[in-house]
Amino acid sequence: MAWGTFGFRSQTLNMPVEAEVLIPQAGYKSLKQEDNYKVIVLLHGVRNDRTEWLLKSQIFEMVKELPVLVFMPSAKNSFYVNTYTGYRYMDYISKEIPEFIRTHFRVSDKKEDWLIAGSSMGGYGAFVCGLNHTETFGNIASFSGAVDITDDVLQIPEFNMHQLFGPRSENLVESTNNLFYICDMIEEDKRPRIFMCCGDLDFLRPMNERYYEKIKDLYDVTAYWGEGDHDFIYWNEQLKNMFKWFCPEDLRNGYFMGRCGNDFC
Amino acid sequence: MAWGTFGFRSQTLNMPVEAEVLIPQAGYKSLKQEDNYKVIVLLHGVRNDRTEWLLKSQIFEMVKELPVLVFMPSAKNSFYVNTYTGYRYMDYISKEIPEFIRTHFRVSDKKEDWLIAGSSMGGYGAFVCGLNHTETFGNIASFSGAVDITDDVLQIPEFNMHQLFGPRSENLVESTNNLFYICDMIEEDKRPRIFMCCGDLDFLRPMNERYYEKIKDLYDVTAYWGEGDHDFIYWNEQLKNMFKWFCPEDLRNGYFMGRCGNDFC
Amino acid sequence: MAWGTFGFRSQTLNMPVEAEVLIPQAGYKSLKQEDNYKVIVLLHGVRNDRTEWLLKSQIFEMVKELPVLVFMPSAKNSFYVNTYTGYRYMDYISKEIPEFIRTHFRVSDKKEDWLIAGSSMGGYGAFVCGLNHTETFGNIASFSGAVDITDDVLQIPEFNMHQLFGPRSENLVESTNNLFYICDMIEEDKRPRIFMCCGDLDFLRPMNERYYEKIKDLYDVTAYWGEGDHDFIYWNEQLKNMFKWFCPEDLRNGYFMGRCGNDFC
Amino acid sequence: MAWGTFGFRSQTLNMPVEAEVLIPQAGYKSLKQEDNYKVIVLLHGVRNDRTEWLLKSQIFEMVKELPVLVFMPSAKNSFYVNTYTGYRYMDYISKEIPEFIRTHFRVSDKKEDWLIAGSSMGGYGAFVCGLNHTETFGNIASFSGAVDITDDVLQIPEFNMHQLFGPRSENLVESTNNLFYICDMIEEDKRPRIFMCCGDLDFLRPMNERYYEKIKDLYDVTAYWGEGDHDFIYWNEQLKNMFKWFCPEDLRNGYFMGRCGNDFC
Repeated sequence: MAWGTFGFRSQTLNMPVEAEVLIPQAGYKSLKQEDNYKVIVLLHGVRNDRTEWLLKSQIFEMVKELPVLVFMPSAKNSFYVNTYTGYRYMDYISKEIPEFIRTHFRVSDKKEDWLIAGSSMGGYGAFVCGLNHTETFGNIASFSGAVDITDDVLQIPEFNMHQLFGPRSENLVESTNNLFYICDMIEEDKRPRIFMCCGDLDFLRPMNERYYEKIKDLYDVTAYWGEGDHDFIYWNEQLKNMFKWFCPEDLRNGYFMGRCGNDFC
Repeated sequence: MAWGTFGFRSQTLNMPVEAEVLIPQAGYKSLKQEDNYKVIVLLHGVRNDRTEWLLKSQIFEMVKELPVLVFMPSAKNSFYVNTYTGYRYMDYISKEIPEFIRTHFRVSDKKEDWLIAGSSMGGYGAFVCGLNHTETFGNIASFSGAVDITDDVLQIPEFNMHQLFGPRSENLVESTNNLFYICDMIEEDKRPRIFMCCGDLDFLRPMNERYYEKIKDLYDVTAYWGEGDHDFIYWNEQLKNMFKWFCPEDLRNGYFMGRCGNDFC
Repeated sequence: MAWGTFGFRSQTLNMPVEAEVLIPQAGYKSLKQEDNYKVIVLLHGVRNDRTEWLLKSQIFEMVKELPVLVFMPSAKNSFYVNTYTGYRYMDYISKEIPEFIRTHFRVSDKKEDWLIAGSSMGGYGAFVCGLNHTETFGNIASFSGAVDITDDVLQIPEFNMHQLFGPRSENLVESTNNLFYICDMIEEDKRPRIFMCCGDLDFLRPMNERYYEKIKDLYDVTAYWGEGDHDFIYWNEQLKNMFKWFCPEDLRNGYFMGRCGNDFC
Repeated sequence: MAWGTFGFRSQTLNMPVEAEVLIPQAGYKSLKQEDNYKVIVLLHGVRNDRTEWLLKSQIFEMVKELPVLVFMPSAKNSFYVNTYTGYRYMDYISKEIPEFIRTHFRVSDKKEDWLIAGSSMGGYGAFVCGLNHTETFGNIASFSGAVDITDDVLQIPEFNMHQLFGPRSENLVESTNNLFYICDMIEEDKRPRIFMCCGDLDFLRPMNERYYEKIKDLYDVTAYWGEGDHDFIYWNEQLKNMFKWFCPEDLRNGYFMGRCGNDFC
């Protein structure tokens, strides 16, 4: 598997951006065929950047022999929305990045092969971008996502919620940034598959349970709970469940973690 | 914790070299004091490079709040020795790298605070550099180390053992590269502490058991066995035991994995 | 010369930040002595990042045999000030970065050995940070700096001047961010040495001529004009003049560009 | 223009390898069309690596608005040949890298759009790979190339010529690694266009003059001489001539150095 670090100019954000990319290597099994890679856009949490999953989890170890490209962008503390102050992070994540990936790599163009995932703020980001762009993402995976942005526990001064979402009351009841609102707005045949998890000690557990209750009868939802906190001890374990849910056939065909079965890792 | 990637010119190898470095951030707890960081020189396996531990394990997650600097060099398939063909990798790892670290970072100068560690070829490397340079390294940690280089199972054409060690028979019975030989040569007061582990399915398990038997009465050895194979599923778990063995006080003082206790991670 | 890329957590900005660093290699000539490196904090222009000077100029080629550490941070479109919206970029550049450098590298602690430099927005940044922090920077170098932030030509919507500086009229007449104001506020014995340049085709040439007239009798100013535009064709050439002005003795002692005189490049 | 750093596993060399890549950004002028990028494989000199051209020249500045992808691999001191000791660097450069580029990026498949270039050892490498693989490279550019490997001035112990080329006399008279031999072996309709340059103070000037005399009536050769030494002061200037020779239409259509004409740089 190849690992690349990209710096490029984002037209949407009008500034330089960077991303970490894990790319399946041509030559391995079926990878010579065009348009065969699945895609995971993997989002970080607050006060972090594109390196978070790479450094704190074993994502590389898990994906190294799978025909899956992983794209990890940096998005500051934007909560992955088009912010109230005019920074179009949702467009960057949901339109510009997929365009960049399709142009520069040989990936599948079927949305069933595209997954947007993330932890904490990135879990919210996976939901809000995924539900607002069902034409691109057929799958969403949230790891202890900050799924209720109206909840008091997220109204931390440092997060600058007003700069992101605007004044709290008027904009967030019926807002496409409100996950509890938008989930009802999507036609049945367009709904993505959903994976979500949250540990029992996690401070975001209550909102995750609420959101699961909200969507479980509307969507094909796979949920994991169990013991764990808001950290990468829990998320690294859940990552394994996510792969089993996202691409089970590839796991049967390729090695998943452990001693490498070919020369590409 | 800061993460840096360095490229510099090695005088010993007379070529450009690179390393990944995890650096404790000044300001955290006691880190303002000089000469306070412990050091881990962490070595990769065959056909790999400085990024191996960083990508395949959760080393960053484990060390992020500890006063420990981790230095991960690239050393190709050198087995970390001064090779028969003249490439002085042991000098690079054991003399030049510590000099680079001491010159550029504020680290402890007590060998009790220095650990050399690695997996597979790197486990052998940790032993061979550590036992040959007891003036620098007070601690050795081997993860499924290739500890018996005379063993048939390691005589793989690709490893070019002759180019590394010379003709097999003459040079390796009484050779400072032979771990079974050199371990008897070190005076008692100079012997490093040793950590070693190897899983039950690992093809290098027999030689690790033999070596443990050889050294257990001569050295302060902490050994872990258990279930596992020659891979990063096992080594990531054992890394936790290694930290508990290397710096238990720091674990009590700092957070070890999990939600970050300060703003530096 | 070693080249490193650092990622660390900024306490001032409360987010992950990155920088490119060129570090003199220990062992070369006088570099074994402590506290011997001079320091250049080198700032990028708008819509760019820490890689700008590294990629677009021959800075590495010029500094490779000099006892000078070059630190290139990313600072988005902040104009290197403590912004009106609360992002403390000036503190990051002028306090936190020097602290990081002093803690992690063996640099001179004399301000005569410290230079802050930059192009365009970074030229303004060099001036505004340098003049506001004369305790740290004994030298300022501006390459076509955006020295008059009240000038119409800089009131571009994309720059979000109001978010950076506040409402235009009230805050910028007597403001420490206004270079035309602060230059009169510094006691004679605290004034830094100044290098500035701007080509004849550069759209910022008029304001640079105005500022030169303003400061030439108050400061030790070395100015270059000549033919050129607002680009790295001109700035790469002027970089050579900057080194001759900043560290002429080092140029006599070390090689400056051209075939390397030792093994470290 | 996007800048990426790749690490991947080379099947040819059976080890991890890395490369710097400059990639035209989709969206710029005609770049939406498939298979439109030209390709430059750009080779470093002895004791250097993939970062050499990036750091020491203004290659990024020159190519930033051109529809040209630049790929800069690391190849140690291999002289870019399939070495006598079994390291297949020519295959890596001439077969595996083009395959990697074609698989992962949308580049032209016409050899007229492919250029292999390099300085010093890399200039020899451009010739030896280009002349041995005329099916891939339609253009060769040598910057002070080490074009006569039998010359005494190149028989430096550190270069290990015997490990690269075998015993000097027998193998190098009629050897496809001998540029003075192979140039006569290529059918007229397969001959690549050639660019070469060497300054008047350069210690490799005599052999470059000899080689020019050898090939000037056989090939379409563009040669630059002039004042200069074996360094990046000279090579950075000559790079501009190389672009004018390689892609003159693109220079007319795009900006070449200087202030960026679009948002992608």
